[in-house]
Amino acid sequence: MKVVIIAGGKGERFWPLSRKNYPKQFLPITSSNSMLYETIERLKGLVDLDDIYISTRIDLALYIHKIVPEIPLQNYICEPQPKDTAAAIGLATIYINKNFPGSTIIILPSDHFIKEKEIFQEDLEIAVKIAKTTSCLLTFGITPTRPDTGYGYIELGEIINKNYSNPAYEVKSFKEKPDLNTAKFYLEKGNFVWNSGMFVWTTNAILEAFEKYMPELYKGLMEIEEAIDTKDQNETIIKVFEKLPKISIDYGIMEKADNVLCLKARFTWDDVGAWTSLERILKPNENNNIIKALWYGKETKNSIIVGNPEKLIVTLGINNLVIVQTDDAILIMDKSKEQEVKKIVEEISKNENLSKFV
Amino acid sequence: MKVVIIAGGKGERFWPLSRKNYPKQFLPITSSNSMLYETIERLKGLVDLDDIYISTRIDLALYIHKIVPEIPLQNYICEPQPKDTAAAIGLATIYINKNFPGSTIIILPSDHFIKEKEIFQEDLEIAVKIAKTTSCLLTFGITPTRPDTGYGYIELGEIINKNYSNPAYEVKSFKEKPDLNTAKFYLEKGNFVWNSGMFVWTTNAILEAFEKYMPELYKGLMEIEEAIDTKDQNETIIKVFEKLPKISIDYGIMEKADNVLCLKARFTWDDVGAWTSLERILKPNENNNIIKALWYGKETKNSIIVGNPEKLIVTLGINNLVIVQTDDAILIMDKSKEQEVKKIVEEISKNENLSKFV
Repeated sequence: MKVVIIAGGKGERFWPLSRKNYPKQFLPITSSNSMLYETIERLKGLVDLDDIYISTRIDLALYIHKIVPEIPLQNYICEPQPKDTAAAIGLATIYINKNFPGSTIIILPSDHFIKEKEIFQEDLEIAVKIAKTTSCLLTFGITPTRPDTGYGYIELGEIINKNYSNPAYEVKSFKEKPDLNTAKFYLEKGNFVWNSGMFVWTTNAILEAFEKYMPELYKGLMEIEEAIDTKDQNETIIKVFEKLPKISIDYGIMEKADNVLCLKARFTWDDVGAWTSLERILKPNENNNIIKALWYGKETKNSIIVGNPEKLIVTLGINNLVIVQTDDAILIMDKSKEQEVKKIVEEISKNENLSKFV
Repeated sequence: MKVVIIAGGKGERFWPLSRKNYPKQFLPITSSNSMLYETIERLKGLVDLDDIYISTRIDLALYIHKIVPEIPLQNYICEPQPKDTAAAIGLATIYINKNFPGSTIIILPSDHFIKEKEIFQEDLEIAVKIAKTTSCLLTFGITPTRPDTGYGYIELGEIINKNYSNPAYEVKSFKEKPDLNTAKFYLEKGNFVWNSGMFVWTTNAILEAFEKYMPELYKGLMEIEEAIDTKDQNETIIKVFEKLPKISIDYGIMEKADNVLCLKARFTWDDVGAWTSLERILKPNENNNIIKALWYGKETKNSIIVGNPEKLIVTLGINNLVIVQTDDAILIMDKSKEQEVKKIVEEISKNENLSKFV
C-alpha cells in the first residue's frame, strides 16, 4: 500500500497568505500546523513514512522537505511543468509501479481538512481492500450538507458490496459544478455526493484505464517507465511532459471509466476552498468572528481576521469582512467577493509593479 | 514680530500613523511633507526663521529639529510637563519678552492645513498691525461652511476697524462646541465663526491679561522670567509647571477678556481633526476614494486608504471604510466610527500586551 500526496497548487485563493511559491498546503489555517503536515500526521499508523510519495513542483520540494522531513527525498516525484492531475498521477504510478509492481495506491490532496483520523484510516483500509479485490477505480464521495455550487457531484447507483462497514456504490455519472437549483435538487435527491479528489486503486487498474482512455498519456508514461533509473530518466520526463495534455484525472479517466466505485466518506471533510471555509472548521467568537491574529476590535461582526502575531489589527464598526494581513500585503474584502480573489491575483501578477506580491 | 508654533499633541486621532511620540504634525497627510514642515514653509517671506519659536514637549524636540533644522535650537521652548495652551503660551511669552520686550507674537498650531500662503501672510500682517495699534487680543475666526459640532464658535459683533482690506470684529461671546441644531442656527445666523486657535497680540497685552484673569499663572511666569538665563532657569520652570493649572488659553483668557478682536480668515483652513478631513483637502478618485497607499482594488467606494509605499493593500467590495496601515499595526473602521479612535487608543495603551503599539 502506497500513498501519493498531490502537493502542487498555485496559491491563489488564499492570497496574500498563500503565494505562487507558497500554496495553501503550507499554511497553518485549519490548525497551528500546515495542512500538509496534518495530512502526513493523519496517515501515521496506517502506512510507513517510506510508503508516502509526494507529487509536486520542483520549486516546492525544498519547502515541503522542511515541513515534513520524515518523508525520504527519493519519494519526491517532481513534475517538470504543471500538467494537471492526470499527468501527475500517471508519473507517480509509473514511478511506484517500476519499483513495487502491483501496488495499491491511495491518492490524497495535501490541502484538505479531515477531522477524525481513525475513521479516515478505517475508510482507507476498506477502500484498499475493495480496490484490490475488484480491480475497480475507487473514489471517495462526501455526503453534501448544503447545496454547494463549488464542487463536482457524483451520482451514486446501487450498493455493490455489503461486506464492509462502509459499502461501495456503483457510479452512475459524474456531474460538473451545478447551478444552485441543480445543487438543491442533488441535495434533496440524496444519491449525489461531492467529488473529493481522493482515490484508491491498484497500479494495474489505473494503468489499464490510462491505456484505454488516455492512450497518448499512456504512451508517454511507458517511455518514462523505460528510462527510470537510467541516465536518461530526467531528460525523458522533461521531453514527455512538454507534449502532454493538461487535463485532470476526473475529466481524463473517472468520467469515462466503467469500473468506478464510490465510497461515502464517514469522516468530516472540507476542501477549505476559500477563507469562509474556516467558518465551518474553526470556532467563531461571540460576534461570529474567526480571529487568527493579534486583534483588538469593537463592533466587529461576522468577519474573518487573519494576521501576524507581531502586528496589531484594530477593527471598529465592520461587518462581513475578510481581512488577511502578511508582512508585505493585506487583503480587505467583503465575504461575498471571495470567489474573485483568484481573478484579482491574476491581475496583480500581470501588473509590472505589483507582480512581486503574488 | 515673533511666531510661536504650538507643537505638542498626543497623536491619538490619527493612530496608527500617529503615535504618542509621533503626533499629527509630523505626518505627511495633507501633502508629501509633514504638516509641521508646511507650517514653517508657510511663514517664509513673512518672518525670519530666527523669529520662529517652537513650543513643544522635550521628547519631541529632536524629531522636530530633524524636520525643520533651520529653526535655531535656542528657539525651542520646552514644557517640562503638558499643562495645555495657557501655560505653554505663557512660557513662550515670558521667554520672548525677556529678550525682545514689547514684541508682537503670532501663535500658530503646527498641525493645521492652510491653502493660500499669500493670503495667510496678508491676514497675519493685518492682524499684527491691529494688535500693535489697539493692544487688543486678536483671534482668527473661520467662516463656517457646514454646521460642524466639532468646533467652538465665536459670536461676532460690529466691525471695529475699516482701515484694512480685512476688518476686525468685536467679539460678543465664545461658544462651546454646539449640538447640531445650535450649529445649524449659528451657520444660518451668519455672525458666528469657528475658533481656529490662531492668535496675535503684543507681549504687553497678553501679560496684562494673564495678570488680570490668571493671576496664579502670572505669578509663576514672573518667577520664571526672573530665573531666565540664570543657573536656576530650568529648575524654576520645572518647579513652577508642577503647580500650574491645566487650562487652555481659550478658557483661561479669551472667554474672559474684554479686549478681544476677531479677524475672519480669508484663506482656506482645515484643522484636519480626523481622517475624513482629508476628503475636504485631497482630491478623491472616481469612486470617491482617497488613496495614499500602494493600492489595488475593485468595487471600492467612499473609502480612505493610507499605507506604506512598500506594502500592497488590496480591497474588494468595500464601502465607507478608513484603512490605515503602518509597519506594525493596521486600523480598519467604518468612517462613522472615527470619533471613537481616541477612546480605542486609550484602551490599547492600558492593555499590557498592546501598549507598545500606542
